[in-house]
Amino acid sequence: MNRHFTLMTDLYQLTMMFGYYKEGIGDRASSFYMFYRPADGLNYAVMAGNVQLLDYIKNLHFNEEDIAYLRSLSLFDEPFLHSLSQFRFTGNIYAQPEGSFVFPGEPLIRVDAPLSQAQLIETALLTFVGHQTLIATKANRIVRAARGGSVMEFGLRRAQGPDAGVLGARAAVIAGCGSTSNVLAGQLYDIPVSGTHAHSWVMSFDTEIEAFRAYANCYPGKTLLLVDTYDTLRSGVPNAITVFKEQREKGYEPLGIRLDSGDLAYLSRTARDMMNEAGFPGAKICVSNDLDEYLIRDLKHQGAKIDLWGVGTRLITSAGRAALGGVYKMSAMEKDGVLQPKIKLSETLEKVTLPGRQEVYRLYDAEGMAVADLIALADEEFDFGQPITIFDPQDTWKKMTLTDYTAKKLLQPLVVAGEPQPIPTSLKEISEFRATQEKTIWDEYLRPLNPNPYKVDLSDRLWQLRHDLLRGRSIS
Amino acid sequence: MNRHFTLMTDLYQLTMMFGYYKEGIGDRASSFYMFYRPADGLNYAVMAGNVQLLDYIKNLHFNEEDIAYLRSLSLFDEPFLHSLSQFRFTGNIYAQPEGSFVFPGEPLIRVDAPLSQAQLIETALLTFVGHQTLIATKANRIVRAARGGSVMEFGLRRAQGPDAGVLGARAAVIAGCGSTSNVLAGQLYDIPVSGTHAHSWVMSFDTEIEAFRAYANCYPGKTLLLVDTYDTLRSGVPNAITVFKEQREKGYEPLGIRLDSGDLAYLSRTARDMMNEAGFPGAKICVSNDLDEYLIRDLKHQGAKIDLWGVGTRLITSAGRAALGGVYKMSAMEKDGVLQPKIKLSETLEKVTLPGRQEVYRLYDAEGMAVADLIALADEEFDFGQPITIFDPQDTWKKMTLTDYTAKKLLQPLVVAGEPQPIPTSLKEISEFRATQEKTIWDEYLRPLNPNPYKVDLSDRLWQLRHDLLRGRSIS
Repeated sequence: MNRHFTLMTDLYQLTMMFGYYKEGIGDRASSFYMFYRPADGLNYAVMAGNVQLLDYIKNLHFNEEDIAYLRSLSLFDEPFLHSLSQFRFTGNIYAQPEGSFVFPGEPLIRVDAPLSQAQLIETALLTFVGHQTLIATKANRIVRAARGGSVMEFGLRRAQGPDAGVLGARAAVIAGCGSTSNVLAGQLYDIPVSGTHAHSWVMSFDTEIEAFRAYANCYPGKTLLLVDTYDTLRSGVPNAITVFKEQREKGYEPLGIRLDSGDLAYLSRTARDMMNEAGFPGAKICVSNDLDEYLIRDLKHQGAKIDLWGVGTRLITSAGRAALGGVYKMSAMEKDGVLQPKIKLSETLEKVTLPGRQEVYRLYDAEGMAVADLIALADEEFDFGQPITIFDPQDTWKKMTLTDYTAKKLLQPLVVAGEPQPIPTSLKEISEFRATQEKTIWDEYLRPLNPNPYKVDLSDRLWQLRHDLLRGRSIS
Repeated sequence: MNRHFTLMTDLYQLTMMFGYYKEGIGDRASSFYMFYRPADGLNYAVMAGNVQLLDYIKNLHFNEEDIAYLRSLSLFDEPFLHSLSQFRFTGNIYAQPEGSFVFPGEPLIRVDAPLSQAQLIETALLTFVGHQTLIATKANRIVRAARGGSVMEFGLRRAQGPDAGVLGARAAVIAGCGSTSNVLAGQLYDIPVSGTHAHSWVMSFDTEIEAFRAYANCYPGKTLLLVDTYDTLRSGVPNAITVFKEQREKGYEPLGIRLDSGDLAYLSRTARDMMNEAGFPGAKICVSNDLDEYLIRDLKHQGAKIDLWGVGTRLITSAGRAALGGVYKMSAMEKDGVLQPKIKLSETLEKVTLPGRQEVYRLYDAEGMAVADLIALADEEFDFGQPITIFDPQDTWKKMTLTDYTAKKLLQPLVVAGEPQPIPTSLKEISEFRATQEKTIWDEYLRPLNPNPYKVDLSDRLWQLRHDLLRGRSIS
């Protein structure tokens, strides 16, 4: 991606930058963090989008056209516009790696940077990471529902624009999808591509069987036939079987059939029986048609005989929850050379932000299963060899003491002093990391309906700091 | 947009193209049409995305990297790959113009092209037009709910990737939004940009009033203050009023305040009273926070005093309906030099496609209001000077005879014999066209809840053709 995204920001980031510039505070150290709220209802998410965020930071600069456009808005003065032409990002960014399982309320990303810089990148950071994390999460829910079946990402045509299709396919593969129909995503990210033919193929021939025969001759040994153009059980499946037999005589085994309409539970069971009886127990049944994690579980529950799931619209748009709802909040700012914690108030405690520069640790039990995440201040020292007591930040009477445990720091360097850090870019590697992580999280936390909430606790010092700021906050 | 989208397609388009090539039928004339289904529940849509579709067609070619990538898949032979390197689009595309009000079941786009070409473009066509039409439709519903108030598009950070943010802002402006916060969209499409400051601005100062004062000094005469960082009514609004008074002494009138949390009906009424009493009846109240067409109507119903609506997440993602569900179906294909109508069957009549190369007419009554759309075969001749009887294609007993009416052909040339046609690109012009069209559609058809269904009827000949194909279809 060499696209120029510098102006892909909200105007208010620039008007604030101008204000900071005029006030002489734009270079003060600050800390911001990105998270999503428990109220947004996603019990877990799968982190994705770091590579695109890093590319954005690498290419972040105002070119002459940008400056000329901003000048035309009559909002900024020349010294400020000149300062923009010199702009580069010099701060630090820490992020949970792509493929991580992340939880509501905790920092997914922390930005330590001069105020103006941290401000400018907010919008693009939320766009890149929010979008891919959303789709990776939806895809993971779907892949988990399909356990044992392979999920193919088929959503490009219903995606919210080209990036949504291409980056969405990337996120889907991170989350566990095995392939995509999107050829551009396949080319850009080295993802296996899949797909066979559409109804229009069948309609291009006088009869369905001619269409099937032609397709099989074109792709012997890779024949997967769409059987629902006219009548699935009376025409499609019998014609497919006829062609499979013809192929077998030529020495080729078929891949199978695809169902794209009708009752997929009933049709798949019946088609399975028909193919088994005809001597093709190895032929796969692939289905598509408005699938999501709920429908897949229902179909499995009803004994559907489905080997491959082509999931399109509802995966690529995260139907039912079309945005992660990620937010990015200031937690500290320098004054007189000292970093001061900052807090944003709200009527609901859940929406009160966390103050100070933060770190997140994941605590694992002796079996290596994740027990809780602990948000602490970055300058806190822990002796993780000692027992640790953690408590719920809202319901502080809910406590837990861990003795035999290990701890892992979750935020990893993405950019240090403006320099991009090496992070994995291979989707295979990232997806394997995701699979490894997934094994450390109890199913109970990942259940789509009524999951057990995973514990995200605050350190004593962080809890106390927030408490003090909440009590002491003078409104002027 | 000079991006290279040729491989932004589903793999099956390419595997089918290879099949057509091997069968020697890829150059046969065909006709496809794009529509969305009544079952998808959008009673109307606002057409958008044609300019991006046209750009895509203009740039459509397989470069060496594309060919090399496709070769690496081991699915295609060399003669076919060579034919791809020669590929260009030579067909015709007709589309309802951007800003048109379109209805379920009718052709939004018709493609008359050699089979392989019509097949290849399906995916990108649906992606570009489906996405922007979806967002334009959602935005139009929101703008209509806000009647008299101005709607600003604020969704970039929650968009499904960069294109969703930028093209979504474009679609929102076509649909009636007055501005966007998205600076890149502003630059690319000459859209007014808007925005003020965030909570982080306020948190960058020791006190809220210092933050307000600094902002007002930075943007005198354009001061719009976000008042909910600490406590809207006890801190934010009083501080804003203090600063407004200071500004007035310097000769500047404020723009107003923004509310981003809490009960917007109550807070806006109270803030309105406070500002009026303080002598600022002209100061505007701008709100944001998970707005959509339903919440806006409820807030208005409850007497909220809101002048400007900043609508983000739910507009830019079309929350509640994250995909248009557009489909693209073959309706005719040449055999032995004659174009033959084609039909796709389904268990539900609604999903049976329309056969033949189609045209759409809108019929207007003597007052210039739209009465019905009529889908006919492209080669039908009508004498629109004579009375016309139209009937519902499903419930054929529902008939209507029009005497004093006019008719307009809706599909306009986008590409003719591979040559791009001139179409409006100025968003101002397109949005004005949309406004003109909107005046011809009764509110009753555009109501978000329980609308009166707009009539989309078939010509006698088209109805008869479909009827004959349905009865005569031999399943082989």
